[in-house]
Amino acid sequence: MKRTLFEEDHEMFREMATEFNTRAIAPHYAKWDEDHMMSRDLWTAAGEQGLLGLAVPEEFGGMGMNDYRFRAVLDEEFAKSNHLAVGLAFHLHDDLVLPHLLAYGSDELKGRWLPGMVSGETVTSIAWTEPGAGSDLRGIRTKAVRDGDDWLITGQKTFIGNGISGDASLVLARTDGSSGRGSRDSFSLFMVRKGEGYSTGNQLDKMGLKASDTAELFFDNVRVQHADLVGEEGKGLQYAAGQLPQGRLAIAVASSAVVRSVYEETVRYTKDRNAFGDRIIDFQNSRFELADILTEVEVTETYVDQAILAFNAGELDAASAARAKLWASERAKSVTDRCLQLHGGYGYILEYPVAQAYLAARLLTIFGGTNEIMRDVVGRTIAD
Amino acid sequence: MKRTLFEEDHEMFREMATEFNTRAIAPHYAKWDEDHMMSRDLWTAAGEQGLLGLAVPEEFGGMGMNDYRFRAVLDEEFAKSNHLAVGLAFHLHDDLVLPHLLAYGSDELKGRWLPGMVSGETVTSIAWTEPGAGSDLRGIRTKAVRDGDDWLITGQKTFIGNGISGDASLVLARTDGSSGRGSRDSFSLFMVRKGEGYSTGNQLDKMGLKASDTAELFFDNVRVQHADLVGEEGKGLQYAAGQLPQGRLAIAVASSAVVRSVYEETVRYTKDRNAFGDRIIDFQNSRFELADILTEVEVTETYVDQAILAFNAGELDAASAARAKLWASERAKSVTDRCLQLHGGYGYILEYPVAQAYLAARLLTIFGGTNEIMRDVVGRTIAD
Amino acid sequence: MKRTLFEEDHEMFREMATEFNTRAIAPHYAKWDEDHMMSRDLWTAAGEQGLLGLAVPEEFGGMGMNDYRFRAVLDEEFAKSNHLAVGLAFHLHDDLVLPHLLAYGSDELKGRWLPGMVSGETVTSIAWTEPGAGSDLRGIRTKAVRDGDDWLITGQKTFIGNGISGDASLVLARTDGSSGRGSRDSFSLFMVRKGEGYSTGNQLDKMGLKASDTAELFFDNVRVQHADLVGEEGKGLQYAAGQLPQGRLAIAVASSAVVRSVYEETVRYTKDRNAFGDRIIDFQNSRFELADILTEVEVTETYVDQAILAFNAGELDAASAARAKLWASERAKSVTDRCLQLHGGYGYILEYPVAQAYLAARLLTIFGGTNEIMRDVVGRTIAD
Amino acid sequence: MKRTLFEEDHEMFREMATEFNTRAIAPHYAKWDEDHMMSRDLWTAAGEQGLLGLAVPEEFGGMGMNDYRFRAVLDEEFAKSNHLAVGLAFHLHDDLVLPHLLAYGSDELKGRWLPGMVSGETVTSIAWTEPGAGSDLRGIRTKAVRDGDDWLITGQKTFIGNGISGDASLVLARTDGSSGRGSRDSFSLFMVRKGEGYSTGNQLDKMGLKASDTAELFFDNVRVQHADLVGEEGKGLQYAAGQLPQGRLAIAVASSAVVRSVYEETVRYTKDRNAFGDRIIDFQNSRFELADILTEVEVTETYVDQAILAFNAGELDAASAARAKLWASERAKSVTDRCLQLHGGYGYILEYPVAQAYLAARLLTIFGGTNEIMRDVVGRTIAD
Repeated sequence: MKRTLFEEDHEMFREMATEFNTRAIAPHYAKWDEDHMMSRDLWTAAGEQGLLGLAVPEEFGGMGMNDYRFRAVLDEEFAKSNHLAVGLAFHLHDDLVLPHLLAYGSDELKGRWLPGMVSGETVTSIAWTEPGAGSDLRGIRTKAVRDGDDWLITGQKTFIGNGISGDASLVLARTDGSSGRGSRDSFSLFMVRKGEGYSTGNQLDKMGLKASDTAELFFDNVRVQHADLVGEEGKGLQYAAGQLPQGRLAIAVASSAVVRSVYEETVRYTKDRNAFGDRIIDFQNSRFELADILTEVEVTETYVDQAILAFNAGELDAASAARAKLWASERAKSVTDRCLQLHGGYGYILEYPVAQAYLAARLLTIFGGTNEIMRDVVGRTIAD
Repeated sequence: MKRTLFEEDHEMFREMATEFNTRAIAPHYAKWDEDHMMSRDLWTAAGEQGLLGLAVPEEFGGMGMNDYRFRAVLDEEFAKSNHLAVGLAFHLHDDLVLPHLLAYGSDELKGRWLPGMVSGETVTSIAWTEPGAGSDLRGIRTKAVRDGDDWLITGQKTFIGNGISGDASLVLARTDGSSGRGSRDSFSLFMVRKGEGYSTGNQLDKMGLKASDTAELFFDNVRVQHADLVGEEGKGLQYAAGQLPQGRLAIAVASSAVVRSVYEETVRYTKDRNAFGDRIIDFQNSRFELADILTEVEVTETYVDQAILAFNAGELDAASAARAKLWASERAKSVTDRCLQLHGGYGYILEYPVAQAYLAARLLTIFGGTNEIMRDVVGRTIAD
Repeated sequence: MKRTLFEEDHEMFREMATEFNTRAIAPHYAKWDEDHMMSRDLWTAAGEQGLLGLAVPEEFGGMGMNDYRFRAVLDEEFAKSNHLAVGLAFHLHDDLVLPHLLAYGSDELKGRWLPGMVSGETVTSIAWTEPGAGSDLRGIRTKAVRDGDDWLITGQKTFIGNGISGDASLVLARTDGSSGRGSRDSFSLFMVRKGEGYSTGNQLDKMGLKASDTAELFFDNVRVQHADLVGEEGKGLQYAAGQLPQGRLAIAVASSAVVRSVYEETVRYTKDRNAFGDRIIDFQNSRFELADILTEVEVTETYVDQAILAFNAGELDAASAARAKLWASERAKSVTDRCLQLHGGYGYILEYPVAQAYLAARLLTIFGGTNEIMRDVVGRTIAD
Repeated sequence: MKRTLFEEDHEMFREMATEFNTRAIAPHYAKWDEDHMMSRDLWTAAGEQGLLGLAVPEEFGGMGMNDYRFRAVLDEEFAKSNHLAVGLAFHLHDDLVLPHLLAYGSDELKGRWLPGMVSGETVTSIAWTEPGAGSDLRGIRTKAVRDGDDWLITGQKTFIGNGISGDASLVLARTDGSSGRGSRDSFSLFMVRKGEGYSTGNQLDKMGLKASDTAELFFDNVRVQHADLVGEEGKGLQYAAGQLPQGRLAIAVASSAVVRSVYEETVRYTKDRNAFGDRIIDFQNSRFELADILTEVEVTETYVDQAILAFNAGELDAASAARAKLWASERAKSVTDRCLQLHGGYGYILEYPVAQAYLAARLLTIFGGTNEIMRDVVGRTIAD
């Protein structure tokens, strides 16, 4: 079926993204993958090209592109070119950090942070997860205590993407002095720039997406000015809940993009390779597999496209976004697996895009709230 | 996510369909199920209500409702009310027989057949499948030979829904005198009314959908006037190929409707029943199952809705329709199975809608071309 | 791989069972299926042939065949001949009722009940499940109150196989006068013969296995002599727990037998039928499906055979039996489904064994404790 | 259920293997993983400990341990200790190269090669696969041509484990001068020691099992003495077919070992970690998952254990071994996936054993003949 999501503007943006991908990423990606770190230049180049902070209003240096289809174009291009780790790094910056600042930050805070986020001079990470608290944010122990006009933040975070390469983090910290599982009002959000007391641990060696650095962060009485409290004190969890749809949608979009690109690559591969005197695609089993896979690709794309439109219309609630994330990420896992199998031994070699996609996809059912959390969220809305 | 398929006209049509369902079907359905046969009155009542021959132009007694969303409304209502066999019977008449007449019949042929099909006075079946030829139409052996101005048809058909209750069949027969597997031009379509030489075998006792009669048909030199040849001689297979999208779409639509209605019934059931002191829906396993199921419901609905719109726009090709059929019918099978399991022992009792839906759904991956055929069709378009 | 379970004795028993099947069941089974009731003569004929009460010691009229492999032979023969409802009826009598009497009954009780159960003059059912209590036995409300030397039983049971055709039931009733969910010591077991106050409701119309009657039972102050209390008062739940392994093993064995017989039938079918000029089995998809299916058949058989040997050795605990039941019944469901699909349209017609097997198999993940209960039981032993 | 495979001898061997694992592997494995290469000392240490060439008769320096259960013990220990790459390296040497020499080699050939293979001084690889021929051995193009008393071998091999670290390869080469797909008699086997004309390409960067080196090999007129032709000229494919059972069984055994060890590790993990105030294992979803997984573990172990016994008895044919490989390797893939998911974010970090196991398991459905080949092999035996 003909896809109807994109319009001319998006296709123009896509051309630019493709060009950027080819010029600024492709020549370096293998090295970044080896280094477990992207070059810092990537960010400023991306900023120059207008690929960062898409939703930032013009007054703060951006272009106010609230239409999520532009973000979707980027995800598709990173998937096609197999630069998935760049997609992840931008996602953290643009889908997770940025929306909280846009929605809850004061104009002063926006003025100080957004221009750098748009230009790529300020690279951000989202520092919520802790060794003892992932999906269960109320278990977070990092605390922020008032010290005159400032706050002092102390605690430990883990699984922080852009943690080493980034300049600042959006930190969720406990501000009511409580211990144990916190209450709804126990937490607040802060923008925290690297500096005294803010240190990074070793890289966590991830299964895939290696070009995106991931690390533990340690805060030891890191001083943060009050103006870097995002929104109001005690509203961290509410703010987090309010921005769930975008984070979940983003994973759905990335998943769908991976699924589509891996499918297309696999069609090419099975047409090119022979076994027993025939093209691999000419075996009935291959054709049946690809028929199932194309169907899943199209089904997933159709569903995620609807979710994008609902999000643009302000109608994507958190449970609907959870369903989109749940669905698309499971598909990413199973489709990359089936496609890998159709590659035979080559599928196991990292040089092949399907191997990279398989490894990247494995994160998607875990990241941004495990799919068990998604099922729980959705199930509760049904049971109520 | 909010569903956007239907407009006001469709909802008005739905009200009428609901009312009809309640008035003309619900009081009798259990008996029809027991009899393995619907009352003939159903058809004329449906005709009177404007539920048959939706796409027939006004000049032939219909309302020219080409918008497939009206047919979708009917399928949804039959699914909701658990009158799935009525849906099947109407499907054969409206989605399979009718489109061939509309697309290829001469005005004379239309004038003689369509008014009765709209009024319900002429109930039709599609008589293609034979004991030795199901999905492989070229294996059909029923033959039609010219006899003066008429044709004489001889052969045997099987799995013919509406076969006993119907008045006439759209018969695919070999007209080139060949034997073995035929060629592309070996077959033609005829409208054949019951009469001398046309006999019906015993009912086939189906697993579900019992109110829809299914039987073998025998043709022994059945005389058919030349005017009842549909379109041109030798074009039967091409015509059949041309109408594949609607037949496949229809099964996708029915599947999606079943999936939605079984899900909703299961939510009600698991809220009403208790075990170990809690509602069944309050067990984490139930919630997770229902979360997965709702996601599949929504995904399938979104996909099928897109297929309906593509069909309305004349853009649903046969392979796309095959994907929609493949997808939705597999979902119908798995979702009814999971929902049945959530009913425990009650799910195994025919009195419960989920049991009926489970039995009906099992046909959907077979009927209208098995899903293996669908995979083959789709796979070939990919491999080409 | 060569199967090593059976020895010569079992094969001799198998010959007898095959002969009995052919002589005493095959000519009548279709009628029983239609009647939703077996002939009473079947039971006495089976008793005469030595097929009932296998484990009953000689002093009570049996042959003391404790070796469960003999029961397995019967299940396999009923599966092969597609007389699955007979297997179910015998299962209730021999695997569920009998073990409780053997394990906990006084010699007096055994002397009064066992000879009739062996001869087939006393057909029994197990009456535990109630409309509001299936897997959760503590929710049972049927009560037994002492009245002089007797007990008076009042309550309602449902899903009782052999409920109409049987002569007596093993009833689980509350004997401590409590209400709400009972305690571990609230319940007792009674053998209750039909008589005053003991009435049967309408048949429950099951999806499959129709020759086995299933009904609601109503007890209205049914008088039972104290000697028909099985074992000690208040130990009903402990007794039930003690006999869980055999009930679960039995379902595993029946499941494995169904899986094997449906596979073999499907191989025959796909060799006999042609499509597109080839045998169905010659399509790669069919071969791949059958390869997977044979593997599941063999895996399941191997596992269940080990469970039989463990049971014979007195080493099959309730959680291990739960795993065997869980595993084999899920396989029965999926294998019959895949085999049905390979039959195309014929798989949907009840005349075909695969259709009957599919319908029978659907009960197996529910019956004898749903598989959700099995997972819970197994999961708890892991988590402890 | 109690496992009955092993006897006292095997458990004594296990203790030795455990000790070796702890002493000679554990301190170095992380470095080998990083280096993509094991230390050469490992092999001689293993030889000294009696872990190599188990089946080699005493006259050739071995211990004649034909009982495959000893190899199974090794696989289990490598799985438990998460040293899966060592298991792979030994497998190539002991399960693939060795059996061909034992079965078809002359005493002279055995005398020259086996002692070094037992002592670990000669590390071997199996060099069959080529860039254009994996499962389809008849497509192999490497050729051996007679040159006086010697052979000259020319060609290219790929995916060769132990390719860089090893001293010699068992090479399948075309000896009849044909081109295109060869016939049954076109190929022969040679033991080829590294030397002039024998060069290794770069490492192939595999998804997992990194400590096992894998590379392309290039042969440019490598001179091999006639005495290193294994068995008779032209019988290479027959010989290969004859040793299929052991190669397939070995993968089944390794798969089962992985499945068991990952399960046990996951139980520990889910007992140790908390979320939302409970242990992860206390969530119903976790318990249900683990119940399913334990069942698969036990089912797979039981099946593979039977296959080991059949192999020991000389009764494991190639199709049965294919089923064992097919089954167990699919389970390895799915169980490691489900276990990884239960680890949440930690499952994605390579430091965790489950991540390593997941990556290793992905090879198992591809290696040693893809599972599509297994299905084809099994399917053909059914269809014949």
